[in-house]
Amino acid sequence: MKKAFLEDLAPGQVFTSEARAVVDAGSIKRFAGEFDPQPFHLDETSARPTFFKKLVASGWHTTAVTMQLLVKTLPLSHGIIGSGVDELRWPRPVKPGDTLRVHCEVIDVTPSKLELSRGMVRMRMTTLNQHDEPVQTMVANLLAFRRSDRAA
Amino acid sequence: MKKAFLEDLAPGQVFTSEARAVVDAGSIKRFAGEFDPQPFHLDETSARPTFFKKLVASGWHTTAVTMQLLVKTLPLSHGIIGSGVDELRWPRPVKPGDTLRVHCEVIDVTPSKLELSRGMVRMRMTTLNQHDEPVQTMVANLLAFRRSDRAA
Repeated sequence: MKKAFLEDLAPGQVFTSEARAVVDAGSIKRFAGEFDPQPFHLDETSARPTFFKKLVASGWHTTAVTMQLLVKTLPLSHGIIGSGVDELRWPRPVKPGDTLRVHCEVIDVTPSKLELSRGMVRMRMTTLNQHDEPVQTMVANLLAFRRSDRAA
Repeated sequence: MKKAFLEDLAPGQVFTSEARAVVDAGSIKRFAGEFDPQPFHLDETSARPTFFKKLVASGWHTTAVTMQLLVKTLPLSHGIIGSGVDELRWPRPVKPGDTLRVHCEVIDVTPSKLELSRGMVRMRMTTLNQHDEPVQTMVANLLAFRRSDRAA
């Protein structure tokens, strides 16, 4: 991937992952066991009497897998460094066997007034399953650096 | 913990974790290796020439550890089921050896007009390190269920 600096980014630009991530039952249970040990994330039987009725991935597992895809998708010069995220939504759960990919669109590019070497890029990021249904949407605020800045 | 139903929740209520989570260098690298393989999350040496200059935890690792604490802290009757998160911010990175805890305050409780058995609770959640400095803030929208709803 060619590195993208602040000057290379503009509203409307799209970055789409060629990479795919399969989320299987084992990884759903492993993530939940460590970080989100609730019955609907831990196993099929304990999930049955819950709101979800089936084993589903933790929303934070979905964000983590999305990040895994972003690292392979967004060629920002200094890496993907987020100051924050707005409007994070999980319109439908990720289920065992789902294959995810990510689609990003630049909303805004704002050079910093104080730090001349950098700025912020605001992107809408959508995580889709194998049926092209969104499983996660968010607006992320990322740092971007000018080409003239040598530190990489 | 006594289970909290929709009727039990009101703006201003506070839930604070007694639980603490230590984030050590090993867990930072392990999480990053799987989900966020960038030089500043992977090891001390590769982190040095980067923006952070030191090994720091992935923001998504911080959200995951926060969830681990929330499961021990929030006694919602049907579990912690988020429809989304607003204003997720990482004001400072989590560093190896940091000990995290979480503080939640109810902002709003809104019964659903369509689904009489449930509603939404909006909470401000702050993750603090051992120096009482916020490492993460967010506003989470969670499902809450009425006591009369028998499915648990």
